[in-house]
Amino acid sequence: MDERCSAAALQEFVERVMRACELPGDDARTVARLMVEADVTGADGHGVIRLSHYVGRIRGGAVNTHPNVAVRRTGPATALVDGDNGMGHVVVSAAADAAVELAAEAGFGWVGVRGSNHAGPGALYATMPLERGMIGVYGAVASANHMPPWGSSERLLGTNPLAVAIPAGLEPPVVLDMATTVVSYGTIKKFALRGEPLPPGWVVGLDGEPITDAEHAHDGVLLPSGGYKGSGLAIVIGLLAGVLNGAAFGRDVVDFTTDVSTETNTGHFIAALDIGRFTPIAEFTTEVDRHVRDMRAAQRLPGVDAIRLPGEQRFSRRADRATNGIPIPPALLRQLDEVARDVGVRPLDRPAPR
Amino acid sequence: MDERCSAAALQEFVERVMRACELPGDDARTVARLMVEADVTGADGHGVIRLSHYVGRIRGGAVNTHPNVAVRRTGPATALVDGDNGMGHVVVSAAADAAVELAAEAGFGWVGVRGSNHAGPGALYATMPLERGMIGVYGAVASANHMPPWGSSERLLGTNPLAVAIPAGLEPPVVLDMATTVVSYGTIKKFALRGEPLPPGWVVGLDGEPITDAEHAHDGVLLPSGGYKGSGLAIVIGLLAGVLNGAAFGRDVVDFTTDVSTETNTGHFIAALDIGRFTPIAEFTTEVDRHVRDMRAAQRLPGVDAIRLPGEQRFSRRADRATNGIPIPPALLRQLDEVARDVGVRPLDRPAPR
Repeated sequence: MDERCSAAALQEFVERVMRACELPGDDARTVARLMVEADVTGADGHGVIRLSHYVGRIRGGAVNTHPNVAVRRTGPATALVDGDNGMGHVVVSAAADAAVELAAEAGFGWVGVRGSNHAGPGALYATMPLERGMIGVYGAVASANHMPPWGSSERLLGTNPLAVAIPAGLEPPVVLDMATTVVSYGTIKKFALRGEPLPPGWVVGLDGEPITDAEHAHDGVLLPSGGYKGSGLAIVIGLLAGVLNGAAFGRDVVDFTTDVSTETNTGHFIAALDIGRFTPIAEFTTEVDRHVRDMRAAQRLPGVDAIRLPGEQRFSRRADRATNGIPIPPALLRQLDEVARDVGVRPLDRPAPR
Repeated sequence: MDERCSAAALQEFVERVMRACELPGDDARTVARLMVEADVTGADGHGVIRLSHYVGRIRGGAVNTHPNVAVRRTGPATALVDGDNGMGHVVVSAAADAAVELAAEAGFGWVGVRGSNHAGPGALYATMPLERGMIGVYGAVASANHMPPWGSSERLLGTNPLAVAIPAGLEPPVVLDMATTVVSYGTIKKFALRGEPLPPGWVVGLDGEPITDAEHAHDGVLLPSGGYKGSGLAIVIGLLAGVLNGAAFGRDVVDFTTDVSTETNTGHFIAALDIGRFTPIAEFTTEVDRHVRDMRAAQRLPGVDAIRLPGEQRFSRRADRATNGIPIPPALLRQLDEVARDVGVRPLDRPAPR
């Protein structure tokens, strides 16, 4: 069984590693907090599982540890952030803060980002406006191309994710965080790690035939969610998050999973919408609660145990893991110990045996 | 073979009908222009095929023919439109104009709409900002619930569409216009009209089994595109277009396809983004062209004749139909003649036999 580590211990460990990689204290804390928040909320494919690779890229000179993150306001409701090739978590946090400030003034704020890096799951950023009574929307050009445009076998698109977070009252917030592929590459990696076969319909070879062996997924391409619709979504998200901001898209995307020295010029967008400009916030959240409950209590299809709204599992996993710790598979624990040795910091504190 | 009618003749006919239904001249022209634009761009399920039903709802007292469409600005970047139960085309056009004006001032404009009605395909409105060098985004609560939340058999969601339009340079604009179901109900209607069977995976019965007879589609429910992801998208679009604006969502949605007397309080959102705030427009459109060409020229999967970008078919269909006329099936022609008789106007002008 996976060992459970406390979020606090994990966060302190990641912060130690980032400091050892020469990130300034504030930035090390931001990266650690957000990486562990990914694990706490169940986005395991985007949390500390990425630490070793992040360290490799910092040491390979691919990432700027002392970026000058420049937030340039370009209109009452718009800003463009140049991340100066800093860690994605640092850059996109700054962009989310800017979006919230714009929305507080203008009702809506849209912030484009270039010169960034892989920043973890979109829900981290889409949920940031929630506590200010705002709705958050996030999109990104993924950090590797795994998907062809519909009809093609050539990898010109990433899993380009979209995340939307909407506050509720007593219910968990509605948080949609979806890759535009059927599954993210992180999920494929989890299947490979466990040696489980992939369901057909996730990955096809260049001949169009299904690939079900997770170890051979890299010979094929990820399929878009909903066929041409997922491909279309990936394209428009890529144009909005990448091309609009002068960030990479299409043939210009660097495969950060195999490269430890090249700047990626990753692009994102983050938007915040001030609910109070449309309806009083208390009325809105009461209505969201009512609709969430209507849907959850609806008639179920045969064989379905529960109807889950977007964000509900994220919310319950958060409640569990914040209290009981984050399950870390043995292979990942060994990887984290190796990172500690490599950068010369104290390893992750293990819980005392019960 | 379907008869081809000129867009001009069709537009004049729809305008006659709308005037006979007591819409003011300007509004009759707006409705006619946009309904026929739907047909010209190939959105046949949302064009004049709806005329007879629109007339039925106007005569049944469900729609206000003389609305006071109120655009209330609520922030530098936001506005809320109360459509006063007017025809959707009239209301959402006004909202799109407002979004463009806001974006011209603030860089980004977000306009929520309530008190509206069925307004045709989202691409009509998402493309309106294009000529101003802007990107358009549109979403709506569909005018009937055909889809359950994922795992349920109860129709609490519509096909809630999302449309995004992005300008290119020499290439056609990138226009994504997608229902969050696998197919829209308009497509089901076209299959029923032609007596063709539905592919499995489009509609299931309340027992979860596929329904392939289009005539019996109403016994079942539409499935979301991409499974839980399409359901999640329909929910967040519905909250943004409906609940945020005080418009109907969930259990409150009136099935406008079977009802001719009840106000629907339909909700939409329309946003415009001023590209120049992020990158010079000429650079942007040149880059979009480059990426579009990269994707179109990419290696194809076996059996694929061409890679089509979102909006490409819309564009070529528009070129064909604007010149050669709109193909109208005989059953639809008879329906239009009946509408003409009902409201007492001259029928659609037929082309002279060649």
